[in-house]
Amino acid sequence: MSYREDGARYREMTASALEKYLQNPQIPQRLLTAMAYSVHNGGKRLRPCLTLASCEMLEGDLAAALPVACALEMIHTYSLIHDDLPAMDNDDFRRGKPSNHKVYGEGMAILAGDGLLSYAFEIMLEALGRYSGNPGYLKAIQAVAGGAGVCGMVAGQAVDLESEGDLSGGAERLRYTHARKTGAIIKAAVLSGAYIAGARAEQVDAIGEFGSLYGLLFQITDDILDVEGSFAGMGKTLGKDKDANKLTYVNLFGLEASKTMARETAEKAKAALKIFQSRAAFLEELTDYTLERKH
Amino acid sequence: MSYREDGARYREMTASALEKYLQNPQIPQRLLTAMAYSVHNGGKRLRPCLTLASCEMLEGDLAAALPVACALEMIHTYSLIHDDLPAMDNDDFRRGKPSNHKVYGEGMAILAGDGLLSYAFEIMLEALGRYSGNPGYLKAIQAVAGGAGVCGMVAGQAVDLESEGDLSGGAERLRYTHARKTGAIIKAAVLSGAYIAGARAEQVDAIGEFGSLYGLLFQITDDILDVEGSFAGMGKTLGKDKDANKLTYVNLFGLEASKTMARETAEKAKAALKIFQSRAAFLEELTDYTLERKH
Repeated sequence: MSYREDGARYREMTASALEKYLQNPQIPQRLLTAMAYSVHNGGKRLRPCLTLASCEMLEGDLAAALPVACALEMIHTYSLIHDDLPAMDNDDFRRGKPSNHKVYGEGMAILAGDGLLSYAFEIMLEALGRYSGNPGYLKAIQAVAGGAGVCGMVAGQAVDLESEGDLSGGAERLRYTHARKTGAIIKAAVLSGAYIAGARAEQVDAIGEFGSLYGLLFQITDDILDVEGSFAGMGKTLGKDKDANKLTYVNLFGLEASKTMARETAEKAKAALKIFQSRAAFLEELTDYTLERKH
Repeated sequence: MSYREDGARYREMTASALEKYLQNPQIPQRLLTAMAYSVHNGGKRLRPCLTLASCEMLEGDLAAALPVACALEMIHTYSLIHDDLPAMDNDDFRRGKPSNHKVYGEGMAILAGDGLLSYAFEIMLEALGRYSGNPGYLKAIQAVAGGAGVCGMVAGQAVDLESEGDLSGGAERLRYTHARKTGAIIKAAVLSGAYIAGARAEQVDAIGEFGSLYGLLFQITDDILDVEGSFAGMGKTLGKDKDANKLTYVNLFGLEASKTMARETAEKAKAALKIFQSRAAFLEELTDYTLERKH
């Protein structure tokens, strides 16, 4: 199958599973609606695609990886909801639509985020019970927990919040923040798929290396898109002009150097996949796509 | 050993383990400080005590239960931090000290809460790996996840938030909200200890019944304390007078009827422990203590 077909298949599996998880009648209606609003808000499902592609590359069971893929999307969504809050980034819009707290109020947005994070773990633990014969399953969930947690995504958010408007610390702080804020969960996504597929140690190393590099590529291209003024970039900063005070690759190294770094990082990411030969086609094409992306 | 000695022992074990977890140098300093501020803010460690007592009652391994006990305290603490935020209960004080967001700012308080919830799961998953030979361990973690999540504590918070200042719905809504907001995680605490100790089905049923009743008792006595104006009650409502608009046992049934309900609930809770005979001494005394508590 082609890159386009594989991607569509991953996204459809994810969408349909997320839909089911978010129809749970035991969850209070307004909380569920607030959670579902942001989960169904047009995301690219990048993290689930990474998990499913990594699992399939190693001939693993996609059905087993799907709960973890959905959990990753819920965790990603919770981080966006909390990040958009007035006390954090104070964004009124997300992907061109009012952010969660603009629709449901700040209190419910906090709870929708808390709920999605909790639900993600509930879903993974339930799946762990069903796949208890799979020796890599716990490692997959641990990878997600580590990527999302206080040494991963939350750490990155905290350092980012602390240093808002502060351009000191330079390249080192930029790398620290982004490796955690966005990189850790992206790396966890590919690792979790590999663990569920029963990856051997050298495969885990290779896919982990790819995850780190791909996460870096994603961040650099995100910074480039923010200044090149795509629609997505405009949506993110609508009504504000604060990006000049942010520590980004573009602000630190300039646009051209950032583009060069992106190209080099994409090459290294693809090189890390070499041992998987032709089975790495999807992740290689995704890397190229990310390098060229316009949103 | 006596009730007092057992309680002190449980609290010391918990305090020392929490101390270690909150010295992790991989967690960014300010995030860690904000998390530790609220965890070390004079809580009674009720939930950890329930887990450890339940486990010890069934002759389980306390060392195995300790990570789950600590995780429960972290989850409880995260819920207090988020609950105190201006968008939620807007409490400037917690246990007589400035609440988390008054000290660290709202953004960091949100992240400290997110961090504690994430870290709780990381800690439990790490322990699950170490105690993989214990067939009840996963069930224990699932009980915690369920109690904390979108059908448990977060559900209770959401319904509570939605219906603020609304006294309609009466006893049914009051029971629904409180069974989830405070009861679910208390029940999860005793159940998790029992699962780790390898409880048989009828023991799980009995301890679950105790957990539900004890949680109810805790809530009723909390409502009574709020109007009887203890120090703790004052700390919680300092600078505000909003409790008259809250759906509480006292507002709904009156003070005397609430006290009668508390006594009856305590009796039922102790009756549920009958099958454990003298080994239930700690939980029975805790129940009496909770009925008579002044804070």
